[in-house]
Amino acid sequence: MPVTSKSPTRRSLLAGAAAGSAALALPGGVRGAAPPARRIGFAIVGIGKLSQKQLIPALRTTKIARLTALVSGHADKAKRVAAENGVPERNIYSYETFDRIADNPDVDVVYIVLPNSMHAEYTIRAARAGKHVYCEKPMAVTPAECEQMIAAAKKAGRQLGVGYRLHFEPYNLELIRIARARELGALKFIAATAGTIPDPGQWRLDKKLAGGGSMVDIGIYALQAVRYVAGEEPVSVSARLGITDRATFKDIDETLAFSMTFPSGVVASCVSTYASHVSRIDVAADGGHFGLEPQLYYHGIKGFRSDGKPFAFPDMDQFAAEMDDFAACVRDGKPTRVPGEEGLRDVRIIDALYRSAATGRDIKLA
Amino acid sequence: MPVTSKSPTRRSLLAGAAAGSAALALPGGVRGAAPPARRIGFAIVGIGKLSQKQLIPALRTTKIARLTALVSGHADKAKRVAAENGVPERNIYSYETFDRIADNPDVDVVYIVLPNSMHAEYTIRAARAGKHVYCEKPMAVTPAECEQMIAAAKKAGRQLGVGYRLHFEPYNLELIRIARARELGALKFIAATAGTIPDPGQWRLDKKLAGGGSMVDIGIYALQAVRYVAGEEPVSVSARLGITDRATFKDIDETLAFSMTFPSGVVASCVSTYASHVSRIDVAADGGHFGLEPQLYYHGIKGFRSDGKPFAFPDMDQFAAEMDDFAACVRDGKPTRVPGEEGLRDVRIIDALYRSAATGRDIKLA
Repeated sequence: MPVTSKSPTRRSLLAGAAAGSAALALPGGVRGAAPPARRIGFAIVGIGKLSQKQLIPALRTTKIARLTALVSGHADKAKRVAAENGVPERNIYSYETFDRIADNPDVDVVYIVLPNSMHAEYTIRAARAGKHVYCEKPMAVTPAECEQMIAAAKKAGRQLGVGYRLHFEPYNLELIRIARARELGALKFIAATAGTIPDPGQWRLDKKLAGGGSMVDIGIYALQAVRYVAGEEPVSVSARLGITDRATFKDIDETLAFSMTFPSGVVASCVSTYASHVSRIDVAADGGHFGLEPQLYYHGIKGFRSDGKPFAFPDMDQFAAEMDDFAACVRDGKPTRVPGEEGLRDVRIIDALYRSAATGRDIKLA
Repeated sequence: MPVTSKSPTRRSLLAGAAAGSAALALPGGVRGAAPPARRIGFAIVGIGKLSQKQLIPALRTTKIARLTALVSGHADKAKRVAAENGVPERNIYSYETFDRIADNPDVDVVYIVLPNSMHAEYTIRAARAGKHVYCEKPMAVTPAECEQMIAAAKKAGRQLGVGYRLHFEPYNLELIRIARARELGALKFIAATAGTIPDPGQWRLDKKLAGGGSMVDIGIYALQAVRYVAGEEPVSVSARLGITDRATFKDIDETLAFSMTFPSGVVASCVSTYASHVSRIDVAADGGHFGLEPQLYYHGIKGFRSDGKPFAFPDMDQFAAEMDDFAACVRDGKPTRVPGEEGLRDVRIIDALYRSAATGRDIKLA
């Protein structure tokens, strides 16, 4: 679904944001908790930090999604996590037995939380197993992989969603609403920075597994945010690589400064970095500016607007919201607001950014 | 003087910043007010908004600089301003009679506050008249003009300073100090935005007079700030033009998104704009981040640092500080911290930025 489209899902998104409520923003109308038997069953594939610290805890608070299966290469860890979360042992899979998930009626959705280079393979296998698929960002390592994933889901007649949790987060939704309503005037430029410091030795620093550096992991939030705030697609992009720690960043980007031009003439100036914990978006309009800092954290997001009007929302669980939303889409046969096509768009732009950084030239986008 | 140099002036700057005091930052030690006869006499060339609203009022509060002459194409305005400020009528010049200033012992320094395209001519004429010259930023429209201005001052044995007022502003000096002391760790990247909305119809929107758009007027503050914070010179730059108002911005830049790479691997991501009142610098280091917002305003600058340590200074008059400092340099025969060579550096980089925006390619700097 293009960011600029006026599909029902986009309208729901904006309506939800306008109402200033994350709950209302859920197009499926996820209000009351469903009994376990009527919930949408999620298999989590990969039990790393994100799964253990965020997704599995969130699945204890979801209203229509529930954890029903685990897929892991570590049998002991899988058994422990399964026991802690009421998942029966028969619903634990290894990567070898994964395809048998096709026969498991407890599983409606397979959530891929693996290293980036494995997203395509496991998404395609899950779709072939007849399951709906939710895949962490970045959707995959190359545009071609994304296209294969989309084709596999389409062929299977199943939905494919990408884990863009901020599409379910009220501050980011309000940011979009302010921009669309032109509350501070016509947009002029957008500046966004997104940074984190990865744990040493983790797969995110291994190009074979991650497919890239800071940009594919954290810079993608700045890219996403600029696109959903602009409400249009970039026509030209460029990027500049910055490396201060050459020992760690031999073949992946530590910092990527990138810029984009949109058809309206709005430009974006962004920074993606693995060198600092930073997160901010600043949107300049002709009547003032507004934004978020931090923009992308799990909690503690803050909004600002130069006209001093209030910009505050209660804390919420972004992961529970995104999984309940996808569960509602699956249950009701409605398209997700974060489909594979949206993931593909970012992967295409990231591919262009890396080519720009390598060649020192602007890259025009089709 | 290179930003990276260890000249006495640079050391004075840092020593001043370290002491956290604008007064101490003045290398001439400008503490007590001098009697009029012992003050350094300033001729203001061009009595537009900056002169009338900032410079001339500041010259009523300076301690060793004083207003002694006016140069203007508007005789009535010049007479009125002269009368209001105790300048004798004999010390009013037109552009035709300007060169006679050579014979006026009341004038030590000629401060050029004309449209950018006239900076070179009047700086050179003032130097030939045997006067020290202080020239508003941007120093000139082309690097070649800057070189001619530097040569003229050198030939005359007079100082040439550029009106970079933030080199005398305590928040910006403290920013440099934090960066150099690595108080929050090694620098990783710098993001800076500088924007204003020009009055319609003013010379700044006329390419023939201004020589460029937002970048030469306001973006130059972001460029300067990134350079003095980085403490090194960029080796590669690129820029992207953004125009949302095509009627106003036919041949000058409304918004310029630009980026730079420094030898250390630090990158900068910047925005210059004539579309929004914005001013911010954010410096990311491996132990946190710090910066200013606004960074460049005449008053009301605020500092922030992620470690929560205090970052606040009393209000002061940047224009009085810069003129007293230049007066002290002239009086004591010490080099200004904002010499023509520093102005030339920015004009060279801006020239490269415009070439990058026009060609869509990185520009390597020598």
